[in-house]
Amino acid sequence: MANRKQKSVKESFTTMTELVLPNDTNTMNNLMGGRLMHWLDIVSAISAQKHSNRIVVTASVDNISFKQSIKLGNVITMEAQVTRSFNTSMEVHVNVWAEDIPSGTKTKSNEAFLTFVALDQTGSPIDVPEALPETDKEISLYEGALRRRQLRLVLAGRMKPHEAKELKSIFNLDEKVPE
Amino acid sequence: MANRKQKSVKESFTTMTELVLPNDTNTMNNLMGGRLMHWLDIVSAISAQKHSNRIVVTASVDNISFKQSIKLGNVITMEAQVTRSFNTSMEVHVNVWAEDIPSGTKTKSNEAFLTFVALDQTGSPIDVPEALPETDKEISLYEGALRRRQLRLVLAGRMKPHEAKELKSIFNLDEKVPE
Amino acid sequence: MANRKQKSVKESFTTMTELVLPNDTNTMNNLMGGRLMHWLDIVSAISAQKHSNRIVVTASVDNISFKQSIKLGNVITMEAQVTRSFNTSMEVHVNVWAEDIPSGTKTKSNEAFLTFVALDQTGSPIDVPEALPETDKEISLYEGALRRRQLRLVLAGRMKPHEAKELKSIFNLDEKVPE
Amino acid sequence: MANRKQKSVKESFTTMTELVLPNDTNTMNNLMGGRLMHWLDIVSAISAQKHSNRIVVTASVDNISFKQSIKLGNVITMEAQVTRSFNTSMEVHVNVWAEDIPSGTKTKSNEAFLTFVALDQTGSPIDVPEALPETDKEISLYEGALRRRQLRLVLAGRMKPHEAKELKSIFNLDEKVPE
Amino acid sequence: MANRKQKSVKESFTTMTELVLPNDTNTMNNLMGGRLMHWLDIVSAISAQKHSNRIVVTASVDNISFKQSIKLGNVITMEAQVTRSFNTSMEVHVNVWAEDIPSGTKTKSNEAFLTFVALDQTGSPIDVPEALPETDKEISLYEGALRRRQLRLVLAGRMKPHEAKELKSIFNLDEKVPE
Amino acid sequence: MANRKQKSVKESFTTMTELVLPNDTNTMNNLMGGRLMHWLDIVSAISAQKHSNRIVVTASVDNISFKQSIKLGNVITMEAQVTRSFNTSMEVHVNVWAEDIPSGTKTKSNEAFLTFVALDQTGSPIDVPEALPETDKEISLYEGALRRRQLRLVLAGRMKPHEAKELKSIFNLDEKVPE
Repeated sequence: MANRKQKSVKESFTTMTELVLPNDTNTMNNLMGGRLMHWLDIVSAISAQKHSNRIVVTASVDNISFKQSIKLGNVITMEAQVTRSFNTSMEVHVNVWAEDIPSGTKTKSNEAFLTFVALDQTGSPIDVPEALPETDKEISLYEGALRRRQLRLVLAGRMKPHEAKELKSIFNLDEKVPE
Repeated sequence: MANRKQKSVKESFTTMTELVLPNDTNTMNNLMGGRLMHWLDIVSAISAQKHSNRIVVTASVDNISFKQSIKLGNVITMEAQVTRSFNTSMEVHVNVWAEDIPSGTKTKSNEAFLTFVALDQTGSPIDVPEALPETDKEISLYEGALRRRQLRLVLAGRMKPHEAKELKSIFNLDEKVPE
Repeated sequence: MANRKQKSVKESFTTMTELVLPNDTNTMNNLMGGRLMHWLDIVSAISAQKHSNRIVVTASVDNISFKQSIKLGNVITMEAQVTRSFNTSMEVHVNVWAEDIPSGTKTKSNEAFLTFVALDQTGSPIDVPEALPETDKEISLYEGALRRRQLRLVLAGRMKPHEAKELKSIFNLDEKVPE
Repeated sequence: MANRKQKSVKESFTTMTELVLPNDTNTMNNLMGGRLMHWLDIVSAISAQKHSNRIVVTASVDNISFKQSIKLGNVITMEAQVTRSFNTSMEVHVNVWAEDIPSGTKTKSNEAFLTFVALDQTGSPIDVPEALPETDKEISLYEGALRRRQLRLVLAGRMKPHEAKELKSIFNLDEKVPE
Repeated sequence: MANRKQKSVKESFTTMTELVLPNDTNTMNNLMGGRLMHWLDIVSAISAQKHSNRIVVTASVDNISFKQSIKLGNVITMEAQVTRSFNTSMEVHVNVWAEDIPSGTKTKSNEAFLTFVALDQTGSPIDVPEALPETDKEISLYEGALRRRQLRLVLAGRMKPHEAKELKSIFNLDEKVPE
Repeated sequence: MANRKQKSVKESFTTMTELVLPNDTNTMNNLMGGRLMHWLDIVSAISAQKHSNRIVVTASVDNISFKQSIKLGNVITMEAQVTRSFNTSMEVHVNVWAEDIPSGTKTKSNEAFLTFVALDQTGSPIDVPEALPETDKEISLYEGALRRRQLRLVLAGRMKPHEAKELKSIFNLDEKVPE
């Protein structure tokens, strides 16, 4: 793996804009959760494609938070970027903003983490380039990715809790230095 | 809270069936992740409605695993049930099976946890009944719900790791009795 | 045909749940007839697939009644089951309930009969198992199926009225014992 | 009812054209039954609107036959016309043709009968004009409409079989003059 | 080209009817521009198929005017017809009317010109029949088609303005006889 | 108009990304023209909203060119920007690129001009800020906008050809200096 290809995470940056139409709303005239999830899946799949230059499939939705409801007529901006790669998989982080252009308000409405696997022409998983973070924000997301990955493996029963060193550290550290 | 209403979790049981049509597939003729997320959102929202007898909104998608791809023509069966309630919110667990009826194969393809908040007529969060588990499986999901909730709060920066007692226990226990 | 495979009708039981979203409504905020028909087609096709373990195609929609309109936000429950099979075709019966969960009301809104034909790998019709009714309700639907089939054939000009013995009996009987 | 408004049935003639796209197909690359039903519902609702100059709702789908499958890329032509009116309801007949323009083939693929009820501004049923047939084909459909209506009422348990005089006649006549 | 096949433009006449449902509307309860464009593309593609008896692809949308907004519940009637053909391409003209049937109003809401190219089985452009106009209206559209084609070529940088003789004539003529 | 608000055109820059799914394709597995038009309408409406800070409606689609077909699985990038404003209307220009990420190819597939009108809270047209171009490309689009506007007015019969001075100049100039 010494000569594994390296690629800056910002090369995977992808932005997607949508307008919330009646077709997208629930019975309270807000954007349906399921429609947003569909858009998040697409924008983050494109980001993972850009990093890997491969067809990709969704491996897991790790977390999508809904901070506030998005209204009919809002313009949604999603920004996705790979945070870190692990052999054949990539974690993607997405930020979502909702904007009411006539009133000039724009607020962050959602944040999500999804994981994708790259496939070769035969549909088998294939290695992807190493993801290099550069900014402080990118480095922070890169470091957190390992803890989130251990968490996914523990929750899926594929890693024993005592082996999840990175994950444990966030608890041990706190115990030693309680605030 | 002594006189909070109680309700068996099985009263929230909801099943939904879908047929994977060309309209639902990605470029590899498999079910799109985003379409499945949309269905998961609906079946689990109905389950949370049944538990709370309220309008509900998605608060977070906590985890959706994709164990294997679902093919065009498959019949999808989703089974959702509330695992536990916390004041105004409810965690819902969903199992997904994909069935190829002509060939007689049926496999578990996905599992998901989503959290919903109940709203009153004015759109404000309102308390929901306590959820009572009965079977071993229901009790296990009920107990895990507290750990998953602490995890969500820690990840969202709304709880300090050293306060997440239930979550920490899964690590401490293992360290004392390593396998 | 003495050794034709037999199968209990209840093995074909299929339930499907849908939430009426703005996307599904007509200009009066009720569920569009055409959207309900689409769901009825899918749930009954899955039921016919379960009975025949084959790919199936819609042969006819025999009757769909609309007893009352279904409102935006209602949860729809459809229950489909094969009533009887005829060589390569199967009649499926579907009941539809509409539920307003917050107000706790649930009413039967529709009932439908559809007929499907089973196809082999080459797309040609192929024999399906005999359908065995067990409960009183199932036996009643089974017996009515022959009259409904004769009716379809008469209406399609493929059977002469005087040959439709089962169908005629419902008129003759009444004439002999007028109420 | 002596002064009930009269209107030629041909004033309700409505034609609708659709192109079968991948989005509309089932797993065998044929038009999905449910999609066709949706189009049939719309074209016949427009026809009933033209006859009544009212908002209309689907009261029943009486019969849709599927003579042959419709292929991806086919151009569908639907022609709907009111056959007869009964106080507040109208029966609509629809013919469907499927055309493969490059190969120059056009075949009748479906035929359907649907019934609609006209509503006033408050959503209550309201009388519609009498429908006047003119051509032989229109007169034949007009006369059959009474039998089909009695059949619907008998099937719905709202008319006793011995009262369905028009319906009975098609059997009695044949018995007297067996072929 | 002397023996190029000829075909009356009226053989390409195609009409399409749609009902504006909530699913089709923007945040002001009017038909979305994009949905109308989708319908215009389909009706005019069918018209071009009829003229050429070939698969066709959209080459350009030359102009779509939006004279007035179309309301939820309106019945839309589109009438498309080829105006003229140029070797492998055809210009199609579409008129759109919006009708509020209960109130009895019907107004012309849009007019559009689109250009299509006919393809043979290998996907290469192929000659189409010459289009023969007959009525005054058809002749007027036929004559204007050459000016509109020159305009498209000039705008696309594929024709020099001074070569666009037909296009220039509409300016010269006016200058000589100012009103 | 001396004190009309001014705004840089680049403030209206809007980018939108879409993935071509089976749901979006025609019978040749290429992106349907109508689906692309729908996306173009949305991205350019958002751009016009950003310039005007108002609700906007489509006034005309002035031209959409289809340089080459877009394939299933391609990632589409659209970039929209206001070119110039005229009292209450704004012309928007959109470039479209289609990218096959696994093979690393990206080509410009379409270019479009649409015009939008800004509306106040009562739905009446309202003045929008003046659009200021800065780069050479922006200035060139700004200057062409006047000719395209005169062309729209001439085609719509709302301006006499001899009054369309800007439009005429592209012909006169050429005649004086033939190449």
